[in-house]
Amino acid sequence: IKRKHSGQDMSIFSEMSALAAKHRAVNLSQGFPDYETDPRLRKLLGEASDLHYNQYPPMGGLPVLRENLLTFNRQREIPLQLELENIMITPGASYAIFMALATVLEPGDEVIVLEPSYDSYVPSIETNGGVPVYVSLKDDFTVDFEALKNAVNAKTKAIMVNSPHNPSGYVWTQSDWNQLAEITTRTGIFVISDEVYDILTYDGNPFYSAFHHPDLCERCFSIFSFGKMFHVTGWKVGYVLASAELLAAFGRVHQYAAFCVNAPAQYALAKYLEVFDVKENRRMMQHKRDFFTESFAGLPFSFDQKAGAGYFQLLKLEDTDLNDRELAFWLTEKAGVAAVPLSAFYRDRQKTGLLRFCFAKKKETIERAALNLKKFF
Amino acid sequence: IKRKHSGQDMSIFSEMSALAAKHRAVNLSQGFPDYETDPRLRKLLGEASDLHYNQYPPMGGLPVLRENLLTFNRQREIPLQLELENIMITPGASYAIFMALATVLEPGDEVIVLEPSYDSYVPSIETNGGVPVYVSLKDDFTVDFEALKNAVNAKTKAIMVNSPHNPSGYVWTQSDWNQLAEITTRTGIFVISDEVYDILTYDGNPFYSAFHHPDLCERCFSIFSFGKMFHVTGWKVGYVLASAELLAAFGRVHQYAAFCVNAPAQYALAKYLEVFDVKENRRMMQHKRDFFTESFAGLPFSFDQKAGAGYFQLLKLEDTDLNDRELAFWLTEKAGVAAVPLSAFYRDRQKTGLLRFCFAKKKETIERAALNLKKFF
Ligand SMILES: CSCCC(=O)C(=O)O
Ligand SMILES: CSCCC(=O)C(=O)O
Repeated sequence: IKRKHSGQDMSIFSEMSALAAKHRAVNLSQGFPDYETDPRLRKLLGEASDLHYNQYPPMGGLPVLRENLLTFNRQREIPLQLELENIMITPGASYAIFMALATVLEPGDEVIVLEPSYDSYVPSIETNGGVPVYVSLKDDFTVDFEALKNAVNAKTKAIMVNSPHNPSGYVWTQSDWNQLAEITTRTGIFVISDEVYDILTYDGNPFYSAFHHPDLCERCFSIFSFGKMFHVTGWKVGYVLASAELLAAFGRVHQYAAFCVNAPAQYALAKYLEVFDVKENRRMMQHKRDFFTESFAGLPFSFDQKAGAGYFQLLKLEDTDLNDRELAFWLTEKAGVAAVPLSAFYRDRQKTGLLRFCFAKKKETIERAALNLKKFF
Repeated sequence: IKRKHSGQDMSIFSEMSALAAKHRAVNLSQGFPDYETDPRLRKLLGEASDLHYNQYPPMGGLPVLRENLLTFNRQREIPLQLELENIMITPGASYAIFMALATVLEPGDEVIVLEPSYDSYVPSIETNGGVPVYVSLKDDFTVDFEALKNAVNAKTKAIMVNSPHNPSGYVWTQSDWNQLAEITTRTGIFVISDEVYDILTYDGNPFYSAFHHPDLCERCFSIFSFGKMFHVTGWKVGYVLASAELLAAFGRVHQYAAFCVNAPAQYALAKYLEVFDVKENRRMMQHKRDFFTESFAGLPFSFDQKAGAGYFQLLKLEDTDLNDRELAFWLTEKAGVAAVPLSAFYRDRQKTGLLRFCFAKKKETIERAALNLKKFF
């Protein structure tokens, strides 16, 4: 069987988690929380099945979940008047990205990817017959709009955007979105916008969805994740916001792929949305980020800035001859702390000196990681 | 956006369910149970979340579920020695079919579809760049192997098989599989085998998976559904059996699409598999089928044979001038009973006189449907 994409057989996240388990290292690689799930959310899942949410929900999602998402997203001051036809529930955000690409791509279409980027984009583009075109972010992970503009041509069908950015935590400003809109205006280019860390912005950093821009909201797929928002990555429920027309096209593909999404989970998420405190959640995560950077102070790592959002902090190891992958393996095996090498987010950069650490962890986990590293260095 | 496939925007199942709701008709169209889910299974779902199955499970599936499936499937006397590398968990069977096609198809590859067939096959083939080639089943829904043989050519990449068959309930015999193997031997053609009603065979009818055939097991994807097996269609968990090589290729695509499957559901399904009684389940469903056919006796419907397996009974309305779709709408609107027109399983056959009724329903539901029809006729 011919390979469908140039990606790794096993994703770096699975690989590092497996390596961490093998060496009993503290696992700060893959982005998943190790703290307890809110008991209210757990309770709702048990109730869902007893309330008979066990049969096919509608293709677009359970009505109560879509209604509650409408309320939730209407607070965002999006120029488009959001309606139910703008929301679709998916079995996770990665699936939504894959299917958005399946919806728009014709064989040979180009899709611009801003490097470093999440590792599923390129395989998803290629599996769907597209050709990735790489544009490097600047060293501070802001967009080089000049380079982006130069990469756009008649074959460009879509641009992958990711804000808040994984792995750097950079959050796109209004000016960023304006520049993107300017470059793509009247081109018909689609924006596939991975916004799974939407509510987790820190230090008062405002979040803007592609959907906030009056010129982008008609041709973007904005993709969100309950796994990341509610800290249940294993529930595998996400959602897409898009114009009615785009979402209808997406639904035509989704309808015959997954068709619909685990109903008990949808019910529990819907009800939890009614009690969920966004600000409190954000505060908790910002606190974890700060605890992480404080705990790692005194170690031979440096950072240019604290993560502006999300689950991850990039750290640079000073004075190393190792490439990123060797570095990550070495720390996992020898120091007992697993992180993700930044090189995994690039097609062909091996040596940046940067590692990505997940701070969506219990206090004790972060302490244990810091202690292991202090012993080692 | 260019349409990706020639299928309906809204599947016939969603359409008929919506129509049934609108007219308060008894809904025997879409294939989902309306009886209670086993309380043991419901309880396990609540426990799963409390036991902290809330974060990413491994890509291939939760270990306990794959282990238990290994035990379950080893009872089937499959020639291949099944191991964990032969089992992968998916977010439903439709998704598995879609991704099996994504795994093997190159643009322009032909895929043979035996008509009548489940409505997701052709859209899934076309979305993945394939070209469906249609071969009609005989009037009794057995395979016309002569016609199948004639349809095979150098462009044929795969054949879609579905046993037990939806909508007819026909179960492939060993001779059927032998003939398929003969036609495809040394061709390298893949068999994508939808076996979601595997354990629901009636009257002592034996079930054979594509996997049972020594020559097919190396190049088939056999696809199963917990939704259908445990009567929780809304849980959206399925699994694939395939050779280690094929499943590795499948995993390379799945890895960057859905990546993994709802973890609490996987845990609950795994534990339930330990107490689940296949024979009892089969007996219950055979009883429902018999109760359905008895309840519908005396109505102007006929059938050639009782369904040999699955959730559905085909019935023919005698003496009608209506095409299937008109017939189904007419009965839903006027008689208050919704069924699926057989025409929906064909590319271009409008008038077969046959409707598909789902008997995976409570006794009272079947009684109410029969009563509505008796009043009407
Ligand atoms: C799907 S596993 C990867 C999880 C994740 O979002 C990350 O670690 O970046
Ligand atoms: C995915 S909705 C269709 C359910 C089903 O299997 C059927 O009715 O045949």
